[in-house]
Amino acid sequence: MENIYTDLALEMAEQLQDGDGGYIDGVEVDNYDQNGIMVNTVRIVNESGAAAMGKAQGHYITIESPEIKVNNVAVHEEIITILTDNLARLVQGVDGTVLVIGLGNRSVTPDSLGPQVVSKVLITRHIMDDLPVGLDGLRPLCALAPGVMGMTGIETGEVVRGLVNHVKPALVVAIDALAARKISRINQTIQLTDTGISPGAGVGNRRMPLNKENLGVPVIAIGVPTVVDAAIFATDAMGLFLHQLAEEAPDAVGSGLSFIQTLENLEDSDKYAAMHAAIDPTVGNMFVTPKEIGEVVGWLSNIIANAINMAMHKGIEREDINRFMY
Amino acid sequence: MENIYTDLALEMAEQLQDGDGGYIDGVEVDNYDQNGIMVNTVRIVNESGAAAMGKAQGHYITIESPEIKVNNVAVHEEIITILTDNLARLVQGVDGTVLVIGLGNRSVTPDSLGPQVVSKVLITRHIMDDLPVGLDGLRPLCALAPGVMGMTGIETGEVVRGLVNHVKPALVVAIDALAARKISRINQTIQLTDTGISPGAGVGNRRMPLNKENLGVPVIAIGVPTVVDAAIFATDAMGLFLHQLAEEAPDAVGSGLSFIQTLENLEDSDKYAAMHAAIDPTVGNMFVTPKEIGEVVGWLSNIIANAINMAMHKGIEREDINRFMY
Amino acid sequence: MENIYTDLALEMAEQLQDGDGGYIDGVEVDNYDQNGIMVNTVRIVNESGAAAMGKAQGHYITIESPEIKVNNVAVHEEIITILTDNLARLVQGVDGTVLVIGLGNRSVTPDSLGPQVVSKVLITRHIMDDLPVGLDGLRPLCALAPGVMGMTGIETGEVVRGLVNHVKPALVVAIDALAARKISRINQTIQLTDTGISPGAGVGNRRMPLNKENLGVPVIAIGVPTVVDAAIFATDAMGLFLHQLAEEAPDAVGSGLSFIQTLENLEDSDKYAAMHAAIDPTVGNMFVTPKEIGEVVGWLSNIIANAINMAMHKGIEREDINRFMY
Amino acid sequence: MENIYTDLALEMAEQLQDGDGGYIDGVEVDNYDQNGIMVNTVRIVNESGAAAMGKAQGHYITIESPEIKVNNVAVHEEIITILTDNLARLVQGVDGTVLVIGLGNRSVTPDSLGPQVVSKVLITRHIMDDLPVGLDGLRPLCALAPGVMGMTGIETGEVVRGLVNHVKPALVVAIDALAARKISRINQTIQLTDTGISPGAGVGNRRMPLNKENLGVPVIAIGVPTVVDAAIFATDAMGLFLHQLAEEAPDAVGSGLSFIQTLENLEDSDKYAAMHAAIDPTVGNMFVTPKEIGEVVGWLSNIIANAINMAMHKGIEREDINRFMY
Repeated sequence: MENIYTDLALEMAEQLQDGDGGYIDGVEVDNYDQNGIMVNTVRIVNESGAAAMGKAQGHYITIESPEIKVNNVAVHEEIITILTDNLARLVQGVDGTVLVIGLGNRSVTPDSLGPQVVSKVLITRHIMDDLPVGLDGLRPLCALAPGVMGMTGIETGEVVRGLVNHVKPALVVAIDALAARKISRINQTIQLTDTGISPGAGVGNRRMPLNKENLGVPVIAIGVPTVVDAAIFATDAMGLFLHQLAEEAPDAVGSGLSFIQTLENLEDSDKYAAMHAAIDPTVGNMFVTPKEIGEVVGWLSNIIANAINMAMHKGIEREDINRFMY
Repeated sequence: MENIYTDLALEMAEQLQDGDGGYIDGVEVDNYDQNGIMVNTVRIVNESGAAAMGKAQGHYITIESPEIKVNNVAVHEEIITILTDNLARLVQGVDGTVLVIGLGNRSVTPDSLGPQVVSKVLITRHIMDDLPVGLDGLRPLCALAPGVMGMTGIETGEVVRGLVNHVKPALVVAIDALAARKISRINQTIQLTDTGISPGAGVGNRRMPLNKENLGVPVIAIGVPTVVDAAIFATDAMGLFLHQLAEEAPDAVGSGLSFIQTLENLEDSDKYAAMHAAIDPTVGNMFVTPKEIGEVVGWLSNIIANAINMAMHKGIEREDINRFMY
Repeated sequence: MENIYTDLALEMAEQLQDGDGGYIDGVEVDNYDQNGIMVNTVRIVNESGAAAMGKAQGHYITIESPEIKVNNVAVHEEIITILTDNLARLVQGVDGTVLVIGLGNRSVTPDSLGPQVVSKVLITRHIMDDLPVGLDGLRPLCALAPGVMGMTGIETGEVVRGLVNHVKPALVVAIDALAARKISRINQTIQLTDTGISPGAGVGNRRMPLNKENLGVPVIAIGVPTVVDAAIFATDAMGLFLHQLAEEAPDAVGSGLSFIQTLENLEDSDKYAAMHAAIDPTVGNMFVTPKEIGEVVGWLSNIIANAINMAMHKGIEREDINRFMY
Repeated sequence: MENIYTDLALEMAEQLQDGDGGYIDGVEVDNYDQNGIMVNTVRIVNESGAAAMGKAQGHYITIESPEIKVNNVAVHEEIITILTDNLARLVQGVDGTVLVIGLGNRSVTPDSLGPQVVSKVLITRHIMDDLPVGLDGLRPLCALAPGVMGMTGIETGEVVRGLVNHVKPALVVAIDALAARKISRINQTIQLTDTGISPGAGVGNRRMPLNKENLGVPVIAIGVPTVVDAAIFATDAMGLFLHQLAEEAPDAVGSGLSFIQTLENLEDSDKYAAMHAAIDPTVGNMFVTPKEIGEVVGWLSNIIANAINMAMHKGIEREDINRFMY
């Protein structure tokens, strides 16, 4: 398990429910629906919960809406305020400089979420003595998009750790495009956690985890699945295809039905491995992403940058959405 | 049939071979292997051939090598000279101004091939009286990347036709990223034809064909499949998965074997349609592309721009590869 | 006179005032100050006025504020509404498709104003049957940044005229970065006219005028001086230097005073020509621009794109500033 | 004295020549002309020389040609080999990882030299076990463009020092666009030194010197003046103007002649300060750059990146110019 996915935290917590629908010791779950936007929070509060879940103690929040990937400004503004509130709650009591890290590759569209957020947050650390006219309540904020190893030759974690040593921020906020585990999650969920991020999740490969243990300061990670690995996609798609075939054309399937059921009951990880082995010699390492990914990453970076601006800078409020961003 | 794929011309010609391995009337096929790079040419030379093939009369050339998608400069240089030779042969006798059109979306990596080529060809039309020092044998060449309808609101064909009316070139060369029909073709083939291009093939949707009929001048199209539609990909991958399963674990497959064979024998187009129906409600319109697509498009645009420079400007030769490109 | 500058219209009108402070026949002038933002309108209403002014009949509006070039969101929003109102008034009664043309070179910062505006206006022409959720009152709008001749080999006017023939818009809005005639105007004035634009004003050279005569439809031009020619700058700066020296150190100047006065009284155009002759062999063609030009062009493109969105799309109003722009 | 300019080293050394044309103790000067390209080397070899020159001990090399700013590929290739040779000599005996730092602002054209070089050098550090086909003699090389404080809120030196601590390179090569002290130097000289660089020279403000003292490893700096401060430009231009006026129209100048001579004899620094005071209230902080700066920075970044590739990677030679750069 190389990535800490908040959605998996939710799924895992549900699998671990006891007979009465309660959750296991050390795990607390909270779900609510705000105007059609689902917000799920899993808290792992003790070592027993962490061991059972196989995850670090902390918060795993998922904000989910199919409208994220659609040109719907009103819903996007609603999501901005939800993300702002949750972000503010996670960093309550942390004052001082914020360092925003935009992970990913500026020149590969679905991996450019982090760099795009960096270009949209309100940078203030260097002008605290000479702030823009009419703005109060700003705190020092700085940001860097360190690039990816394929273009710099340097592991992202090396750049960030060096930077933290010199900037000495009170808080790191890392943004990354993720590889989804299920096609249904692509561009539909924003994932937020105070347990940091283990890069390598997205399109590129970035290995050293960015978390409090490695960096010495709290690390908030905001991730959005924008791609899915091609083998995972093909396996999920095959499942949907065969399931639908069995339902709609049982005669055509005939004696193949039990085979389809056997396939369905296989472990996902086994199927993924077999699919990978089957397609890899032909195609190598591929990913799947929506045709409109360019616009979607624009909307997502806008949502996340606005939420960071509002949660970090007390002087920026809901009516200021997009106001300091051009 | 909305796209004119040169590879399909080859496949189709092979299906239409007569019993003795000869081709049908009006279709000529030529294959050769130059240092491991496959070059296939299909010529449709009369109406009967065009009718049988369902394609316009003209040349369909495919240059194919798995090394295109790998960082192998020596093979890329070999491909540049092959592409140059074939391009030069297709435009033999056409003198005067060349207009290069880079189709596609600059901001979506696998669709940015055309705009990247435009930024790398040697533009001379505006400086024919004041050419760079030391260069002879240049002809007037101009270039435009007209963008995609989603970003401009204008159909590409409208921009190009208007431009041709005013620039009055002797030749149009259009470059586009294509959607492959098979995963095995992605980033492995460069397709060249003198019958024009029907945009809408790639990631975006661009409808009016760019060809001699519409533009009034010869149109050379250079296309490279850089993506594959997600449903086609999933169908191909399912086929590979089930085939491999049947071979390697016949016991597990058991009575499912005949079902798998039935699936294999279905028409591709039926399977694609069924796959599309199965996955579309979940994922919408997606495409598949390699993780290293950023680098690959860089290599491909370099190969194509060098070949255009060498084929169009007589003063640029093999030892000048990359020399006028920065 | 190669460029139609609205500011020059104002200056010229003032020079042509009669003894009683009235303006000459055929020229009407209107000035007002809205919260410190100066808005000047010159109307040339008949042939006699046009002949006296040496300019086409039409409106020349200048919006001027030193805060344009400063990070002052509140003033920028005020300017957006002033520009919107003036733009709306100029195009009153014109319905139908709008074509926005962003002149200039995307890759030279002070010349990138036009292309940046194109990327920020709300493009709707291709989706009139499927508009974004919650938006009414949109009209068909399309946009293109045709690039500059140095990068395409094609004169801008050729691209635009071809496009207008095929798109058949009811209105063209052209945006361009201009070269100022005085250093005091750089990044301080937004100039608006319904008489079109004669490219060649800015950093590049683009020759065919875009106006109703050439394009067959009304052409609104929006220009902002973002650079000043180096010779003009040096001449103005020399004037300031010598003037200040004469005032502050009359003893040091001594008998040079009358020489300084002679210089001051020379025609500007003579001084510019002499300065050009003096510096050109050393430096060639140079321009002057502020160090913070990157941010300023970002602010300016935001102001102009918001005003175009609000003036053209009736459904977008003041509270929607920046709302559809990401 | 905030910047270490190699050209100033040359000028200063000449001013310090003794009566017989010899140089002062501790300073060695070497000039040669290679096919019209001037190469000047100043070596400060002891403390006495350093004190007299007001500069750190080390090498200051200037490569100068008016053809740098012109589209002349043959001369550019000559300059590449000269720069390669000088660079190789400066780093003789230094083995191990090279870290290339591209200073400056990617989005302001004349300040984008450093980031453009970073995107063109051959990055190998992350693939030393899996190098491109057919390449030997590569050493580990990594690169970062850390951005400018105005966009990140972080001083460049903080990013670089942190990075050096973790990457532990054997050598840092820093590239920066500089502000020239004289208009005649813009885009005509490439400056190379092994004494490091004091950022703040160019368009932005970057303060901590990058040198062996601060970073703990040898630092090679490569700088090119691409702009000149507007006040310096105006002062120089005024001097040229008045000088030419006095020569060509002595009658018009009349009694102003002695005033012009007085002005000419003033200290440059006094004149610059007075010019700054005269123009600053009107225009603020401005710079001057050539109209064709976009192309010139492309050529310069190509020259420098090729020279770094050839000097650092033994396997890349003169016939490989541009070969690994796309």
